[in-house]
Amino acid sequence: MKRPFLHAPATDMLELLEELAAFSTPGPGVTRLLYTPEWSRAQHFLQEKMAVVGLEVHTDPVGNVFGRLSGSQDSDKVILTGSHIDTVVNGGKYDGAYGVAAAVTAMHYLAVTFGPPLRTLEVAAFCEEEGSRFPLTFWGSGNVTGLYNGSVAESVSDLEGITLMAAMESCGLPNQGSRTDHDDQGDRLMNSARRDDIGMYVELHIEQGIILEQSAQQIGVVQAIVGQRRFTARVIGTANHAGTTPMGLRQDALAGTAEMLSALEQFAVEAGEPLVATTGRLEVFPGTSNVIPGEVQFTLDIRHSEAERLESFCSRVMTKFGEIAARRGLKLELEQTLATSPAPMNPALCEALEHICQEQGRSFRSMVSGAGHDAQLFAPRCPAAMIFVPSRAGISHSPEEYSSPEELAAGLDVLTALLYKLAYEES
Amino acid sequence: MKRPFLHAPATDMLELLEELAAFSTPGPGVTRLLYTPEWSRAQHFLQEKMAVVGLEVHTDPVGNVFGRLSGSQDSDKVILTGSHIDTVVNGGKYDGAYGVAAAVTAMHYLAVTFGPPLRTLEVAAFCEEEGSRFPLTFWGSGNVTGLYNGSVAESVSDLEGITLMAAMESCGLPNQGSRTDHDDQGDRLMNSARRDDIGMYVELHIEQGIILEQSAQQIGVVQAIVGQRRFTARVIGTANHAGTTPMGLRQDALAGTAEMLSALEQFAVEAGEPLVATTGRLEVFPGTSNVIPGEVQFTLDIRHSEAERLESFCSRVMTKFGEIAARRGLKLELEQTLATSPAPMNPALCEALEHICQEQGRSFRSMVSGAGHDAQLFAPRCPAAMIFVPSRAGISHSPEEYSSPEELAAGLDVLTALLYKLAYEES
Repeated sequence: MKRPFLHAPATDMLELLEELAAFSTPGPGVTRLLYTPEWSRAQHFLQEKMAVVGLEVHTDPVGNVFGRLSGSQDSDKVILTGSHIDTVVNGGKYDGAYGVAAAVTAMHYLAVTFGPPLRTLEVAAFCEEEGSRFPLTFWGSGNVTGLYNGSVAESVSDLEGITLMAAMESCGLPNQGSRTDHDDQGDRLMNSARRDDIGMYVELHIEQGIILEQSAQQIGVVQAIVGQRRFTARVIGTANHAGTTPMGLRQDALAGTAEMLSALEQFAVEAGEPLVATTGRLEVFPGTSNVIPGEVQFTLDIRHSEAERLESFCSRVMTKFGEIAARRGLKLELEQTLATSPAPMNPALCEALEHICQEQGRSFRSMVSGAGHDAQLFAPRCPAAMIFVPSRAGISHSPEEYSSPEELAAGLDVLTALLYKLAYEES
Repeated sequence: MKRPFLHAPATDMLELLEELAAFSTPGPGVTRLLYTPEWSRAQHFLQEKMAVVGLEVHTDPVGNVFGRLSGSQDSDKVILTGSHIDTVVNGGKYDGAYGVAAAVTAMHYLAVTFGPPLRTLEVAAFCEEEGSRFPLTFWGSGNVTGLYNGSVAESVSDLEGITLMAAMESCGLPNQGSRTDHDDQGDRLMNSARRDDIGMYVELHIEQGIILEQSAQQIGVVQAIVGQRRFTARVIGTANHAGTTPMGLRQDALAGTAEMLSALEQFAVEAGEPLVATTGRLEVFPGTSNVIPGEVQFTLDIRHSEAERLESFCSRVMTKFGEIAARRGLKLELEQTLATSPAPMNPALCEALEHICQEQGRSFRSMVSGAGHDAQLFAPRCPAAMIFVPSRAGISHSPEEYSSPEELAAGLDVLTALLYKLAYEES
């Protein structure tokens, strides 16, 4: 069956993006941190906007905002689409907001053009994904999928010492009418944020990488979101005089670290895509030009879309680091600070997206998301899909973040077609 | 000719070392920075001490203290011996002070035992060598040898903004009777600190390295003080997302730096002793665990006792660094921040020291000094020699700095014998 020509008005979406970008604390780019006045105003604005375009608006105790088009045939399971509404400090106006603005625009267009869907559609504006204010990520989608309970809200604080719970209360959350139960251990739950009615999840997002731009393709069909391992390493040697200590009598923590980092890079290149391995932070002690470094501390960030390969790569690196340290008489301490599993997207949804791109005559490619997204919380629970559009020069989390109106419109068209197929077509 | 058994009283020297160590600002170890009240008291104490043991005391405009035994035959050229009286912050009690205390003790012993020398002997307590208060080194011996003129004293300041000149004035320097002339450009000269009567320079010092301890030898006969090159390097790549940027599309400044540091170490090991090459300070920007480093800044400290080999090693390193940067699409900026020439010690004096060690039945070895010393300022101008004694675990510039009374006494005996040979024996 050939589906009708679908073309939601991109101008509406672009206007909505600009409107959202205005909810920002002063400074370069967009800064809209969780539970700040700017964030609160943005979520209220979105509620009004969704209501105006005919969506049934509801919110949850953590401040996620949903807009619903109830299905005429089947309303038990929801086809959810959207992204997050928070930003990093001095971020761009596309990361997260694009997926929300496009979903609102697509659903408005579909409702106006085709009436109510057969199956229920909802747009989600998740309250938080970035982890920029509090030391946790995915607070929005994590509450919906049951990753978090309310106890976390009392135990984590921002840099000013404000607890997550206090920040929520300053925004009038948990909001009226929400249930805040306690479990057997007395932990406060936010059960009303948890949802078991999500049947599918679709997220449109900017790539935040350079792959689509480099390969000159319009659409990325995400096959999986990578799993991550993060470690902190301490390499301990002996600080000593840079002039009076012969090369053969040194335990130079930095020379040992340099060998480790070269091995890490070599292994990563050998492993091939999509594996990436990065040391982003490194500190040398005592850090004086004429003293041999006695200690180096550094981070490791390793990602792959396949759990086994991620695991075996990390093992290979740890073994090699241990060998290097032992040979050099250095002490090595490694601590794992993060471990997330790869999240494969649903193959049938990926295939559907490829067909849509072909129908629309768009260039596209399969790819892996090296960054984390809300979709990875849904993927273990229901079929999930992600659509990427190009990011200029791969830049994100920066005021320089940019995708052209044409690129954004192409993503909107693909999302609209997928939502139509999922919610409107007879199965 | 067999020289008499010479054995200056080590207890006097050890007592003087303890007395000097008491002139310190509070805190661990010894802290006696240039032109502080502690420094001033130490230099006055030394003047009294030298006078008490029968030396003719004189000082110069920068606060160097000298004690003289005038020669009966030849008093035109002075055989100078000593070291510096300042310390680093929280330093030990041997670095510098040992060479002064041993020289005073040796000269006292020689005068009492043998009367006036044939040729003039002087002990020098140089005011400054370490560069711990002001951003310059060798202020004491540098004024005696003409490296500095008074203009410097008005242009450099300590961390509290006090100029070197103001600090001098707070100690009553330039002292009464000193001439402070101006040259053609109006620069203030401290001509009376400059001396053209130094015929020889001998310095006894702790090794500040681990070579003597490792080789279980009592005396190091220094063949040369290394020349140094210091550089700061900036490696500039592209900061990017650690998850979304494939390995093949990175300009990772830290990965490039790791390759450079590994090459540096490999080249240094290949070059062999006495070459040493060290990166002691390294900073990564932006320094976030999930961001590929866009820039790394680091220091290079390269030392060798032969000028040509030092030069060719630095050239080889610079060429290699350039190749690595170019291959990786990184920008490399190198700035030389220090260049000192190697200072060979006088071969005849080295030979005399070896004979003395043999006569005294002491184990000894030829070695290179990887650290800088006042002797390097005299070496281009007159025959110079340095004697090293072991430093426990090679530790210096620390309250842990230690050499045993026996090790210190052995150095004193060698110094005493050399001074006797130079000043008392018929040539």
